[in-house]
Formats: sequence, structure tokens, C-alpha cells
Amino acid sequence: MSDQPFYEHHVFFCLNQRKPGERTCCADKGAQAAQEHAKKRIKQLGLAGDGKVRINKAGCLERCEEGPVVVIYPQGTWYTFVDNEDIDEIIDSHIVGGKIVERLKI
Amino acid sequence: MSDQPFYEHHVFFCLNQRKPGERTCCADKGAQAAQEHAKKRIKQLGLAGDGKVRINKAGCLERCEEGPVVVIYPQGTWYTFVDNEDIDEIIDSHIVGGKIVERLKI
Repeated sequence: MSDQPFYEHHVFFCLNQRKPGERTCCADKGAQAAQEHAKKRIKQLGLAGDGKVRINKAGCLERCEEGPVVVIYPQGTWYTFVDNEDIDEIIDSHIVGGKIVERLKI
Repeated sequence: MSDQPFYEHHVFFCLNQRKPGERTCCADKGAQAAQEHAKKRIKQLGLAGDGKVRINKAGCLERCEEGPVVVIYPQGTWYTFVDNEDIDEIIDSHIVGGKIVERLKI
């Protein structure tokens, strides 16, 4: 049961923000800035749009302790990241090159 | 390039809310209530969790005119819906039964 994908790569960044004192969350670890960076870079590369790439915001993806996390479908590959260089590597390798970034994969 | 899925069905509801006067959006068409209903039902069925089903909130999925929309990965199946009965049919048929709901598919 699998369809032709509407987006070749549909990327979901967890942007969940928990309250102070609650367990760790992606929003406290730069997730929003990373999502904005990815969106801008995909647009610059001319990869945004139907049949290509969509960078999305998402609610809690429930992998808080491993965060910040991003998942790319339909491949179902999960990554963590520290900074924009990590995001660029995910874009260059996984999205453009079709090669999983093993060092960031969770 | 495909991984063993962390969730067997990862369901993203577009909950995007546009400002009055802007183009149509999923939030104006009951998307939030539908997402809450789906989350509750999946929990009741004992299907929530790692290796099973995750019901997620998402930002704009960019299929506004066809909304409200929901996409299920890794299958990459897109649906629209009107009410909780449609959501139940998607859960019973697609998620539990492994059969696409053709009448709601977009």
C-alpha cells in the first residue's frame, strides 16, 4: 500500500514547546531556527513545491530525549542536528544526493 | 533509500490557521477537532505509540484548496474529510485494515 508521493521529500521539524520545568523539548534546542533555515535553503535551491520538497512545522513527534528531531518522508528517516551546518548536510546529502547522513541519523 | 518505520502510520493533520480574508485554510474546516478525535480514537484502540501509530499536528501542508487534509506516512496517502465518521473510516480502513479509502483520497 504505497502511493506516488505528492512531495518527493516531506520534511517535518518538531517545534514542540514545553513549559519550564517539564521534560526537554525540541523548541528549546533551536528547532524553529533550523526549520526556518531549511525552508529558506530549499527555496534558494529551487526545490520547494509540489513533486519536490516541503519543509513543515510539526507538533511533538514524541522523541523528545533524542531531540531536536526532524523526520523525512516517505523515506521515514529520522535525524537530530545541532546547527545550520547539520541541516545543510541533511539537505545536500539526503535530499539532493539521495544518501542518508549516518552520523546524524537516530 | 528506505528505513524501517519508527511509526507504522505517522499521521499529520494540517492545522494551519490563516487570517480572515486570506485564502481558505484547514483550521476553518474543523481540522483541530478532527485531529483531537483521531488522537483519542487511536489511544482507545490501543494503537498509540512507538512502532504503531502517531497522530500529529502540522503546519500548512500546502494543499489548502483541497482541505481539510491529512497525510499518512510512510504510505504517503492524502485524504480529505468532512466529519468524525470520515476520520473513523480512515482509521478503520487504512490504519487498522491496511486498505485505502478511495472515496476520501485526494
